[in-house]
Amino acid sequence: MIITVVGVGLIGGSMAIGLKEQGIAKKVIGVGRDTDSLSKALTLGIIDEALPLQEAVKQADVVYIAIPVDATVDVVLQVLDLISGNQVVIDAGSTKFALCQAVKNHRMRSQLVASHPMWGTEFSGPEAAVSGAFAGRACVICEKEKSSEAALQTAEKIYRQLQMHIIYMDAANHDVHAAYISHISHITSFALANTVLEKEKEEDTIFEMAGGGFESTVRLAKSSPAMWVPIFMQNKENVLDVLNEHISQLRKFKASIEKENINYLVELIENANKIKRILK
Amino acid sequence: MIITVVGVGLIGGSMAIGLKEQGIAKKVIGVGRDTDSLSKALTLGIIDEALPLQEAVKQADVVYIAIPVDATVDVVLQVLDLISGNQVVIDAGSTKFALCQAVKNHRMRSQLVASHPMWGTEFSGPEAAVSGAFAGRACVICEKEKSSEAALQTAEKIYRQLQMHIIYMDAANHDVHAAYISHISHITSFALANTVLEKEKEEDTIFEMAGGGFESTVRLAKSSPAMWVPIFMQNKENVLDVLNEHISQLRKFKASIEKENINYLVELIENANKIKRILK
Repeated sequence: MIITVVGVGLIGGSMAIGLKEQGIAKKVIGVGRDTDSLSKALTLGIIDEALPLQEAVKQADVVYIAIPVDATVDVVLQVLDLISGNQVVIDAGSTKFALCQAVKNHRMRSQLVASHPMWGTEFSGPEAAVSGAFAGRACVICEKEKSSEAALQTAEKIYRQLQMHIIYMDAANHDVHAAYISHISHITSFALANTVLEKEKEEDTIFEMAGGGFESTVRLAKSSPAMWVPIFMQNKENVLDVLNEHISQLRKFKASIEKENINYLVELIENANKIKRILK
Repeated sequence: MIITVVGVGLIGGSMAIGLKEQGIAKKVIGVGRDTDSLSKALTLGIIDEALPLQEAVKQADVVYIAIPVDATVDVVLQVLDLISGNQVVIDAGSTKFALCQAVKNHRMRSQLVASHPMWGTEFSGPEAAVSGAFAGRACVICEKEKSSEAALQTAEKIYRQLQMHIIYMDAANHDVHAAYISHISHITSFALANTVLEKEKEEDTIFEMAGGGFESTVRLAKSSPAMWVPIFMQNKENVLDVLNEHISQLRKFKASIEKENINYLVELIENANKIKRILK
């Protein structure tokens, strides 16, 4: 089939690569506001052709939308206005509640599958796109009952061929969980980078010492504001809840260190160690 | 030469492996309080022999001490009491000020090289020891002027053969930098794990969604209290300074999200992105 990818960055580009490699798409058409990214994606062979949205949607069996979440709502609505018949629309946004609310009364709602493939890196743009990106990861599909059987099957088939396992969830729950499992990690990384960069103003040599632990906790701080500011805004309430909880957890460490309350400190760390149950 | 490694865990074990592989040590003697760890290290071939401290020190050209920092001070003093002639003592503790203070008037101070190889993982015990652990990382040597020329050269030769680059620093500065570059990352990881585990009590499925970003920021939360509580205690003032700064950075994110101050949020993230300069 012909698949149009709107947004040929990290996610859209990696999706395009996967769709071609798995033989799911015989042709991938790229759409994007940034002509630089589009021509890079063409040069890299990630997309076969770049077209304006309207033309690209007309040719497509599936339209895959992977752009910042503030733009996603508008573009999904635009694309739903443009499609007809059995054309399927899938979005990959990191927040789902605002989108699901915005499309709920659209006459073509059933052709949309609202999804969130749980993969990403701190890099952006088509140069960051990689082969095999999604394998082994979870993909959340929200409000599956609002999608037609055929549209849902198309999306599920694509994600399964990319070796993702699918989790079904309502949109509000998705956004709560995403705040815990993804959004807060980015805020802590950004804040940690700023903490250390603040110090670096005084001390040039501090980073010579940086080891693997620092790199892994600060890695996400390279992530782009274009992607993350809209996520924090759309998921504001949940993100603030988690951020408040996180600050209060940090205060427990602060209090136990200040008071040299070793038993409490051990207890806090032993509790954190329970994360071993979950992470490999 | 014969090298005695006190503490055959993650660091001591990886050091023993490297010393043998590089042909630096023809024999490695292991010392430890935990007989389980010692016999594991023997079985794994990490050490050639396990002996009590006094006997092991007697035979050694170099004594390498890699144990939790609260025990380090006592054991280094004990070992300095035991050695004679040109025997060299090297410690690998993550804090350096308390140790350097404790040994400053010891008659054998010049035989000690106070160092901190900047490598580690979230795992512990001899099973966690790996080959090639230290390659490409920094090793801090503190108060090099307090070590004899010969002792310093021995330590430098060992670290360089393990492909580390050496940074010289005074002990107080080391502890400030370590708080920024290593200790705070562990606290944020522990606190993030506790934040998410708190939520998990309500929601069993939350971790099905966990992707790579979460894993990398929470990875360090598996680290052991036996290692980290003494570090936080010994480096209390610096750790609290950095923790306060970190909480205040998080509050900036909180305020900008609460007030939907997008310009400020973009500014905070763009500033954090400057970490790209430092990390690859």
